[in-house]
Amino acid sequence: MLSLLPRRGLTFATSSFPKSSCATRSSSSLSSYSSLVSEFSIHMQLERVASLLHWDAMVTMPQTDAHHCERGLQSAALAGVIHEKQTSKKIGELINEVNIEELEDEEKANFELMQKIYREKTSIPETLAKQQAELSNTAYVDWTKARSSSDFSQFSSTLKKCFQLSKHLTSLKLGSNPKQVSLYDKMLDEYERGLHSSRITEMFDNVENALIPLISKVLSSPKPSTSCLSPPSGSSFSIKSQQKLNNAITKKLNFKGRSDISVHPFSTSFSPSDVRITTRFSSQEWYQGLAGSIHEVGHGFYESNLLKSPVCPINQPLSMGTHESQSLFWERHVGLSKSFFNYFGDLIREELQFSYSNTELYKASNKVEPSLIRVEADELTYPLHVILRTKIERDVTNGDLEVDQIPRVWNEEMQSLLNIEVPNDGEGCLQDVHWSSLAFGYFPTYLIGAIAAAQLEYYIRKDLDFNGCIEKGEFGRIEEWLKKKVHVKGSRNKSIDDLFESEFGERLNEKYFIEYLTNKYAKLYNL
Amino acid sequence: MLSLLPRRGLTFATSSFPKSSCATRSSSSLSSYSSLVSEFSIHMQLERVASLLHWDAMVTMPQTDAHHCERGLQSAALAGVIHEKQTSKKIGELINEVNIEELEDEEKANFELMQKIYREKTSIPETLAKQQAELSNTAYVDWTKARSSSDFSQFSSTLKKCFQLSKHLTSLKLGSNPKQVSLYDKMLDEYERGLHSSRITEMFDNVENALIPLISKVLSSPKPSTSCLSPPSGSSFSIKSQQKLNNAITKKLNFKGRSDISVHPFSTSFSPSDVRITTRFSSQEWYQGLAGSIHEVGHGFYESNLLKSPVCPINQPLSMGTHESQSLFWERHVGLSKSFFNYFGDLIREELQFSYSNTELYKASNKVEPSLIRVEADELTYPLHVILRTKIERDVTNGDLEVDQIPRVWNEEMQSLLNIEVPNDGEGCLQDVHWSSLAFGYFPTYLIGAIAAAQLEYYIRKDLDFNGCIEKGEFGRIEEWLKKKVHVKGSRNKSIDDLFESEFGERLNEKYFIEYLTNKYAKLYNL
Repeated sequence: MLSLLPRRGLTFATSSFPKSSCATRSSSSLSSYSSLVSEFSIHMQLERVASLLHWDAMVTMPQTDAHHCERGLQSAALAGVIHEKQTSKKIGELINEVNIEELEDEEKANFELMQKIYREKTSIPETLAKQQAELSNTAYVDWTKARSSSDFSQFSSTLKKCFQLSKHLTSLKLGSNPKQVSLYDKMLDEYERGLHSSRITEMFDNVENALIPLISKVLSSPKPSTSCLSPPSGSSFSIKSQQKLNNAITKKLNFKGRSDISVHPFSTSFSPSDVRITTRFSSQEWYQGLAGSIHEVGHGFYESNLLKSPVCPINQPLSMGTHESQSLFWERHVGLSKSFFNYFGDLIREELQFSYSNTELYKASNKVEPSLIRVEADELTYPLHVILRTKIERDVTNGDLEVDQIPRVWNEEMQSLLNIEVPNDGEGCLQDVHWSSLAFGYFPTYLIGAIAAAQLEYYIRKDLDFNGCIEKGEFGRIEEWLKKKVHVKGSRNKSIDDLFESEFGERLNEKYFIEYLTNKYAKLYNL
Repeated sequence: MLSLLPRRGLTFATSSFPKSSCATRSSSSLSSYSSLVSEFSIHMQLERVASLLHWDAMVTMPQTDAHHCERGLQSAALAGVIHEKQTSKKIGELINEVNIEELEDEEKANFELMQKIYREKTSIPETLAKQQAELSNTAYVDWTKARSSSDFSQFSSTLKKCFQLSKHLTSLKLGSNPKQVSLYDKMLDEYERGLHSSRITEMFDNVENALIPLISKVLSSPKPSTSCLSPPSGSSFSIKSQQKLNNAITKKLNFKGRSDISVHPFSTSFSPSDVRITTRFSSQEWYQGLAGSIHEVGHGFYESNLLKSPVCPINQPLSMGTHESQSLFWERHVGLSKSFFNYFGDLIREELQFSYSNTELYKASNKVEPSLIRVEADELTYPLHVILRTKIERDVTNGDLEVDQIPRVWNEEMQSLLNIEVPNDGEGCLQDVHWSSLAFGYFPTYLIGAIAAAQLEYYIRKDLDFNGCIEKGEFGRIEEWLKKKVHVKGSRNKSIDDLFESEFGERLNEKYFIEYLTNKYAKLYNL
């Protein structure tokens, strides 16, 4: 029992990090650049440690408030350290010592990202950062309470503070930025780097205009049967069988990481070679669990295929929308395709012990039904949920809407967009957690991801027999394509627009998403 | 799929930590003390994070060299940060601002520990700390190679460097310490705070003198059958059944933490309420797996029962020997007792599907058989392995033995102590990893723990019907007693001698260990 032998000596991080390519050239500017890369590697390794604290809290730690509270102290200690390092004078000095003209293109892109991170982190005084942390804790509690009593008025004054503080923080980050961008642009930039809100408005408006008549047509057509999704009355789907099915499918997709169970599915990465996903199961519906796994596998592939070295900002995912494009590509364009069920149908029938046909599985999993709750929405109605919340957060940020008016606008728009009566705020404007975290600008990335995924399908079809790959189980070829076009590019581009422009010769374009939905649902519903 | 929502805001550690008791009194010295406690809490939370990196690496991470290498970078980044914080000027300034006269007794003890930690950490220049980290990495590799080719000469020059550097580091830590202590005393102090090597020599000599004749008598008596430990020829014990048995037993012992499988069993703690153990199983022998679990449970109880707040040095375990006394108390004094098999016999027979009697189980699990390998040794011969390595590391440190002479001394002593011929260095002086980590002074804590455990049994019998508690499954009463006498005391005492003096009116005393072994084995072997 060799327990408790102390961990082996004290090891220092800097000595172990790979030197950047410029280490072989030489100048004091290049050596400063090299040191900067080493410093950032350490920050990023520490951020991976923070991700492990989170993964463990969600997956292996006992799930009690006391444990989460303890873990919170550990996360807070680590977050404090990371913040100290990211804003240290040393970083500022190294940045000043670098002569950008001496850098190669990749180094330049990396340097600009490091500069940006440093500038934005140091633009927030510590007192404000603490205020942000405190408000986001309080707001989470207030939101939970308000949601459970379905009463927006219990949350409105806190939400006002959230908007106010977020605007203030954003204006500090903007600083004396010469490019005229709005506050909401800058909030968005936090999650969707380099994509201005004018682009979003333009794309989202087109999506909205196309979807409303399409959904209306779909809903006036006969509905497909969804009985294969539920177990026969009085019985249930075994969780073990679902787990076995999911593992078999994610393995066939070539996902190599761990897969565990957690309350909310998520994916996380401690390095490209240690990417983990989680999922959850219901005994009353099997497809959501599978869809969740495939979605997370999509995120996981992106993380797995990032370049491993050096650990630095250009080798990080480009944006949340780009990330979501990967998860949605696998969840929808692969997992909701007819070819998918043609390939996996036998396995599904065997594990779930039923005899529904591939076509029945395909039709049921693609059912369209407007719903109150975004996370339960289907592919066709989901965009409207995103569009609605995006408009509201943008309008409140711009001063065009009062916080108190949110429930009214929400309910009216749900009626006009989806013809749905919102019975209460809990199932209405209070359903999502994001605002309580001051995560304004996050929401649109869900739809950006969906738009990008459809565009990727369009372009992958030019290079590959996409359906053929799925029907033959050649998922590695699909992953390889995405890896080459998106994953290994990391954050080398300034935005998803730039990435697509350089890979496909055109920026993000919602027309592919609209075409994809129009064609797919026309066939499905004989429109 | 709400994955990838960013972690909620940036949280700062200091605001969340409990204030120490002196927060209600007031003076600038007290406020400095209070700040010091907050700072140390953060260091200790970060150390818990480091423990999680280790636990995850051993339990859930894919077990490949590449993964361990990646994880090494994360651990290194975190270790660097912890070292920076522990040696920061801020800590030194706060220490200088504290007037020890204004502190209450507990605060004084805590302050002295913080002072000691700071003094020792800052006594090592960064270059030397790096050198230590590097040497311990190289030495580990060299040791592994030498062990696998069973050739000490491949390790000797590295081992000389390890001794040399360790002596240098230790002399720096000693500094101009007014109390005259030897280098080996100071090395020992790293693991067994406050216990001088003269005490160890005294106790270990007495143990050696008592055990040699006792072992000789035991070995000349008829051996008990050990057939119940192995499966019938050609078959095996199911790992699942062993897991079920272990879980049932550790649950009955009242252990509440997670239990997982790993290559080397260990216990770890992320807070008193999140203590985890691991174990391993063999299909050819069932008792070692169970003994391992009970051993780790003993460590776990100590960690679980430490005071939770404030997170500071006095609420940490006192020493490695004290820790080992807890694991050995449960493994041997509880788990190897006749009462244990009387209580758990039915469960063991049921799970392992055999019909050996309680007496057969008791006798087999207490078999005595001199062996080459320490970790496989029984309770009676184990101390001699520890005594041998302790003498060698002490003598080399003191300059009384050359590194090159180690194999010869090892082999001669194995012959004279245990009458065992050492066939090669791999199974001889190279068998243990500790020296390659520069962990000189660690080894004796194994026997200190055994001595202390026997003394605890002596004293628990004055307060409780110890056998009765075990026979009735009242393990909570035993844990409660240990909690009160040892666990909650944390590091309030200056040494295990002081702890025992204050709890039992006498310091650590090897006579209880000798009596325990003499009586037990006299009965077992009808001596």
